[in-house]
Amino acid sequence: MSLIPIRPGSPFGTPPERSDAARNRERLLQAARDLVAEHGVDAVTMDMLACRADVGKGTVFRRFGSRAGLMMTLLSDAEAEFQREFIFGPPPLGPGAPPLERLIAFGEARIKYVEEYGELARAAAEHSPQNRHDAPPVVLWHRHIEMLLREAGLDRDPWLLALSLGATLDPERMLHSLRAHGVAPERLAASWRELVTRLLKDC
Amino acid sequence: MSLIPIRPGSPFGTPPERSDAARNRERLLQAARDLVAEHGVDAVTMDMLACRADVGKGTVFRRFGSRAGLMMTLLSDAEAEFQREFIFGPPPLGPGAPPLERLIAFGEARIKYVEEYGELARAAAEHSPQNRHDAPPVVLWHRHIEMLLREAGLDRDPWLLALSLGATLDPERMLHSLRAHGVAPERLAASWRELVTRLLKDC
Repeated sequence: MSLIPIRPGSPFGTPPERSDAARNRERLLQAARDLVAEHGVDAVTMDMLACRADVGKGTVFRRFGSRAGLMMTLLSDAEAEFQREFIFGPPPLGPGAPPLERLIAFGEARIKYVEEYGELARAAAEHSPQNRHDAPPVVLWHRHIEMLLREAGLDRDPWLLALSLGATLDPERMLHSLRAHGVAPERLAASWRELVTRLLKDC
Repeated sequence: MSLIPIRPGSPFGTPPERSDAARNRERLLQAARDLVAEHGVDAVTMDMLACRADVGKGTVFRRFGSRAGLMMTLLSDAEAEFQREFIFGPPPLGPGAPPLERLIAFGEARIKYVEEYGELARAAAEHSPQNRHDAPPVVLWHRHIEMLLREAGLDRDPWLLALSLGATLDPERMLHSLRAHGVAPERLAASWRELVTRLLKDC
């Protein structure tokens, strides 16, 4: 498994940008970060970004494809860090702990991630079941869960079971529990622990 | 528990319509059903409906609030039938079977429902986490799952666990597995059975 590159400069394996293009891109991203900090994710539009960065709207769309694409790019540093932690980091999130402990730690880390980046993650998946279910990072989370289920000896269709467990950790869903229902993150984490502990019992 | 009235004529407890209003509404709904049958859910717009029914666009919006509201209304008969079955129908979906058998039957019935009405259900929840997570029928499904978990003796935060199980049966998610990944409905059902059977073991 390798890190999924949704990084500025090389989204999904495109060739490296020339340095002026890279500078322009960084300027656009900084303007987008500022707008998000000032107005919140939900209020930021492509028009606002074009206006703030003093470029045409066409430039913004060519750069990011869509509003969801912009949000995905803004998320990419946090996502890369999260990937590093569960693939290479210390146990129990990283390798070296039993699969159940790693699964529990994975859910807890996802919940923390959603507390911090949930609005961005929701906006990145917006209007697109494709982004929501099949974006490269999502596929990687599911592979990780599947690998841990197999390690734990749960070998009846672990891929599909991993998709189900992934659905319970869906950013939009968890964000809704946290924000609209006022569920505390610790309570979400306890429920995840209960779910996977029961699931892996006697494997 | 009572049936959740998302029925034509009395959405969410509004007073009954006068008969000419009811006739107009039925005419609009029939036009919408025809358009869905001809073009598929995803292609139908409020403009198309206004044009087909020969009314102003404002009338259509006043009637249904939004495209999602229209789709919810189109779903309401199927939803009412589904509710009747799991609340009053014969076991194992209805009362009279052990909770694990009822849970398995509930998931199987949801999968069948999504096979038949998934596109409508997805459109009804579109652009609205509120509709997706808190529409009255969704709340009822979650209460039903929660009740069965309690009956099975699973009493550690059964409401939150019911929300997680509900997420694995989310129409958009299941539709994506069926359509984009070509997962057979029987395989989805087997995975659901495995999940809840393991979860309720030794309760």
